[in-house]
Amino acid sequence: MMLAENIRKYRKKDSHSYCMGSFPSFELLHARPEIIEMILVHTDLKAEILVKLREECKKADVEIVQSNKLIEKIRDKENCMMAAVFRKYQSELGHDKNHVVLVNPGDAGNLGTIIRSCIGFGITDLAVIEPTVDIFEPKVVRASMGAVFRLNVQCFESYAHYEREYGSERENYPFMLNGVYRIGEITPLQDRAYSLIFGNESHGLDSSYLKVGKSIVIPHTRFIDSLNLATAVGIGIYEFSRHGGFL
Amino acid sequence: MMLAENIRKYRKKDSHSYCMGSFPSFELLHARPEIIEMILVHTDLKAEILVKLREECKKADVEIVQSNKLIEKIRDKENCMMAAVFRKYQSELGHDKNHVVLVNPGDAGNLGTIIRSCIGFGITDLAVIEPTVDIFEPKVVRASMGAVFRLNVQCFESYAHYEREYGSERENYPFMLNGVYRIGEITPLQDRAYSLIFGNESHGLDSSYLKVGKSIVIPHTRFIDSLNLATAVGIGIYEFSRHGGFL
Repeated sequence: MMLAENIRKYRKKDSHSYCMGSFPSFELLHARPEIIEMILVHTDLKAEILVKLREECKKADVEIVQSNKLIEKIRDKENCMMAAVFRKYQSELGHDKNHVVLVNPGDAGNLGTIIRSCIGFGITDLAVIEPTVDIFEPKVVRASMGAVFRLNVQCFESYAHYEREYGSERENYPFMLNGVYRIGEITPLQDRAYSLIFGNESHGLDSSYLKVGKSIVIPHTRFIDSLNLATAVGIGIYEFSRHGGFL
Repeated sequence: MMLAENIRKYRKKDSHSYCMGSFPSFELLHARPEIIEMILVHTDLKAEILVKLREECKKADVEIVQSNKLIEKIRDKENCMMAAVFRKYQSELGHDKNHVVLVNPGDAGNLGTIIRSCIGFGITDLAVIEPTVDIFEPKVVRASMGAVFRLNVQCFESYAHYEREYGSERENYPFMLNGVYRIGEITPLQDRAYSLIFGNESHGLDSSYLKVGKSIVIPHTRFIDSLNLATAVGIGIYEFSRHGGFL
């Protein structure tokens, strides 16, 4: 059981984190109720939301704690009236699943947006390569709109570690400004899983990744330096998921 | 000539705004040097950047002002050592050009990211429908990485105003969760311009937009509510620009 005094501004080393806002908290309740320590509510929470919350928490055996003081201590936005306290967890990726691999993602908002796109297009397995923004940082959870709780995420010390465990069994597609293939030219094999690999916001992937698999470029005009990372990942997953059946 | 005392935290009603950071400021210098009032530099700006800046400003006849006090007064991030002060401007959209239309965009970061995607995929004309986040807010300019200066942007009181001026001459494609056509099913006509129309972050487009043209859905799993707006717009422009020739 968690003590109220352990609820304070989130730090990376904590074993728990916070899911802010009602939409993401309901998502957490639906996807992984077993990791919730408690749900904090503010007295200003709308009555109809509280009714719905009480009902769902009763079913899922989750405790609701009404405390303006605790919510005000941790929240990122003034208008946040509900937050879930949850235990962080680890997952392993599926060997037969398609992956997105993010090498050194640095922006919490981008990471959350990317997770939302993954879940939206049927990718449930994400690898992140250190150094990386903390996947359970409240800002990531919020930007993902709770989609992070639908995801298997595994963190690797280096790309070599990821490659050793998962690389050889699959097709690897690093996305690079100097990629060899134009996106849309490549059709993924039906009988093998693939990994879509993306570099970080400022540097992309260095040229050593040209050898990692079939490198892919999303062509754009010379008037921009590159696309926003979350946009590039969104387009990559969208294009590949065309062939995957669900779209 | 602008007075230093008029340089203060940006407000929407000001006739000038700020472009923060060296990459976006160089973009402004290349795209629209004539609207620059001055470029502010901090004494901590890297020497090699200052050399390059001096050279380009001399050619473009732009004044450089070194003032830590002024930069510190307006900057959004501690590490911002260069900022351009520019006059805001209005542009008209091209009747024969493809447009992106954003109805009530509410997030500055999303708007900047969308502008970057537009310019990256060859869309140079953007309509924004009020109420809207201010297109010249420094956060928009920064998130666009300066791509905003390559764009024609026109602001409309309502969608009806936009439609009256531009709607009848083109194909209109509202993007909606309940759109009739799946993206990828539609191939734009070669001899007519099109408009891709998107709603705001929380509400999307209401059902009245079903009549505005051929409504389009980007299919996604039921595990997310919607894609992030900037991601959806990126995918929309990407898909349509396939047929446009430049990709």
